[in-house]
Amino acid sequence: MSVIMDRTLLARLAVLERTIPKNHYNPLLTYLAMELHPDGLAFIGSGGDVDLEVRFTLPTGEKPRRLLVPAQPFFQLVRNLPEDQVRLDFGEELSLSSGSFNTRLSLASDEGYPDLYFPSPDPEPSDIYPLQTQLPPEELVEALTHARYAASNEEYRAIFQGVQLEFSEGGLRSIASDGYRLALYDLPTSQPFTRKAVIPATSVDEIVKVLKGTSTDRVLIALGQGVLGLAAKHEGGAVRMAVRLMKGEFPDYDRVIPKNFPSRVVFHAGSFLKALQRVSVLSDRLNHRVDLVIEADRIILSAEGDYGKGEEEISAELYGEPLALMYNSRHLRDALAFIPEEAQLLLSGVNTPTLVMRNPEDRYQAVVVPLRGS
Amino acid sequence: MSVIMDRTLLARLAVLERTIPKNHYNPLLTYLAMELHPDGLAFIGSGGDVDLEVRFTLPTGEKPRRLLVPAQPFFQLVRNLPEDQVRLDFGEELSLSSGSFNTRLSLASDEGYPDLYFPSPDPEPSDIYPLQTQLPPEELVEALTHARYAASNEEYRAIFQGVQLEFSEGGLRSIASDGYRLALYDLPTSQPFTRKAVIPATSVDEIVKVLKGTSTDRVLIALGQGVLGLAAKHEGGAVRMAVRLMKGEFPDYDRVIPKNFPSRVVFHAGSFLKALQRVSVLSDRLNHRVDLVIEADRIILSAEGDYGKGEEEISAELYGEPLALMYNSRHLRDALAFIPEEAQLLLSGVNTPTLVMRNPEDRYQAVVVPLRGS
Repeated sequence: MSVIMDRTLLARLAVLERTIPKNHYNPLLTYLAMELHPDGLAFIGSGGDVDLEVRFTLPTGEKPRRLLVPAQPFFQLVRNLPEDQVRLDFGEELSLSSGSFNTRLSLASDEGYPDLYFPSPDPEPSDIYPLQTQLPPEELVEALTHARYAASNEEYRAIFQGVQLEFSEGGLRSIASDGYRLALYDLPTSQPFTRKAVIPATSVDEIVKVLKGTSTDRVLIALGQGVLGLAAKHEGGAVRMAVRLMKGEFPDYDRVIPKNFPSRVVFHAGSFLKALQRVSVLSDRLNHRVDLVIEADRIILSAEGDYGKGEEEISAELYGEPLALMYNSRHLRDALAFIPEEAQLLLSGVNTPTLVMRNPEDRYQAVVVPLRGS
Repeated sequence: MSVIMDRTLLARLAVLERTIPKNHYNPLLTYLAMELHPDGLAFIGSGGDVDLEVRFTLPTGEKPRRLLVPAQPFFQLVRNLPEDQVRLDFGEELSLSSGSFNTRLSLASDEGYPDLYFPSPDPEPSDIYPLQTQLPPEELVEALTHARYAASNEEYRAIFQGVQLEFSEGGLRSIASDGYRLALYDLPTSQPFTRKAVIPATSVDEIVKVLKGTSTDRVLIALGQGVLGLAAKHEGGAVRMAVRLMKGEFPDYDRVIPKNFPSRVVFHAGSFLKALQRVSVLSDRLNHRVDLVIEADRIILSAEGDYGKGEEEISAELYGEPLALMYNSRHLRDALAFIPEEAQLLLSGVNTPTLVMRNPEDRYQAVVVPLRGS
């Protein structure tokens, strides 16, 4: 029996192309797995850290079995079909037909392909995923992206290469830090369990891409031993993920977040960022230093390096004492990038951490440590 | 004295950013040179193979002198100005001011910076550029791009890494070949001198980018010893290039171009290219082989490789005997890419070169050598 799929269904497979590695020490992982059921068809990829499944409710009339298709040619062909529909026939080979175009793709045996475990899209705790909750996908995306930029790229403190999700009665917090800066986002929705889970930052990027492509209003989040599962229904099917978690959790970071602020300065984030971009062109390329002189009604930004010196001022309102500080310009840029209009720096001192936020009620808070005076 | 420049003028400098190398064994070449004259200001970059000047008629009141400014920060700043205008002051440093943004860029001594020779935009033969002609820039672009793709990337026959321009009474021909294929374009405009000049393909790319950015209706082409000069006026100034030529000229290529064709097949180039793209997904990755079976009213394209086999047919009109050939699919793709609608293959045999063109009056001709039967 054959299955007819149209472009809208095939478009949903695009997320899999990013998940399936082009090269892997287990060459089977460079294949796209297809699971046939009498009344459904699932496309599956595993990147090692992230497994992803896109499932369709489609009568196939086939006995349950799993086929492995070479992923790269499959996706290349699917992107370039001459007609809106493609017919799939499952035999010794996978045959794809569309208009006058016919192709037969060779299949590989699935012996050695890992068994993957995804949560059900409906909340029903299982042995593998005992803890479950649901959220609007855009809220989970907000929480993940507001923290993810602060994750570390360095190997030596591996846990900081992840984003920590903290589920509790009080809500869901996401947090990341590289030791020099920190970003967190507090989602107030109460959660039915208390647990911390650290997701590798690169897997966070994949989750965000998949969630942004869903049209559903709820995503299921499921936690198991060393694994985070996600599932979202879509018209005629579902998309599901299983994401390997990092071992361990963040050290106590609360003491890094300053609580007392002799000075607070309010300004337009967009104007500040544009001035920062110009001024920091001349920053030293090693420490990206930018100097801020904060006065009653303005902030003067300046930077100096091998090629010269740049300076610009923007208007601001200072509450407290004037002061002068130095920052890594990239840390300021990243921390302010999520704030479209009014922003504030809450200054605990010239050598102690600065808090960046929209206002005290903001779900998002960033901590940036000033550079030490020379 | 200071000079005020606005965004429209600054936008013309973008071409220089591509010419000036980010790294070079002569670090002075990573600088932007500025030539001051009492009534003009020129911005100059040299990439070693290509020198480029963008000149403005602007009263500066300055004595003639040359300044070197670090190119990367200069362009970064110019792209991100807060206002539409920028004021340039030339002193010990170059000062740029725009709105509340002020910067001072350090200058380097121009000792060791090469002397560059550009042709005048008005045709006036000089010692350095004794041969001169003029063309609409879009015609020169057409001639260069239709040949350039066929140039070789391989070191072993260096001359084939260039595009040869052939100036003669009969017109201007551009030609390139990598030994497996050949492309040429004949511009019928009679030229006032007879000369062949081989331009490195990478310099051809720079010329095309610069010419596409000009708004003039004539570009001056000037030939000298080992150098091709170009000059085009624009409102309030001019852009000029000096391009190093390759030594030598192409071996006689005319014998490669077939003259007798037992078969000729006419088809829609766009349909062929789309089918070719699909079918060649499955081609062997080493030789990119695609098989064509040419019949009275259709062409059947097919390819087979490790992952499977693909096949598609398109409608066509054959004049002559049916035949079956093999090609490198990339050679066919490149040769047909310039032909939007009706195309033809003129077939001299299954193991001898094929001519690709729109029609016998076409300015563009490509030669593709079929793969040998196995």
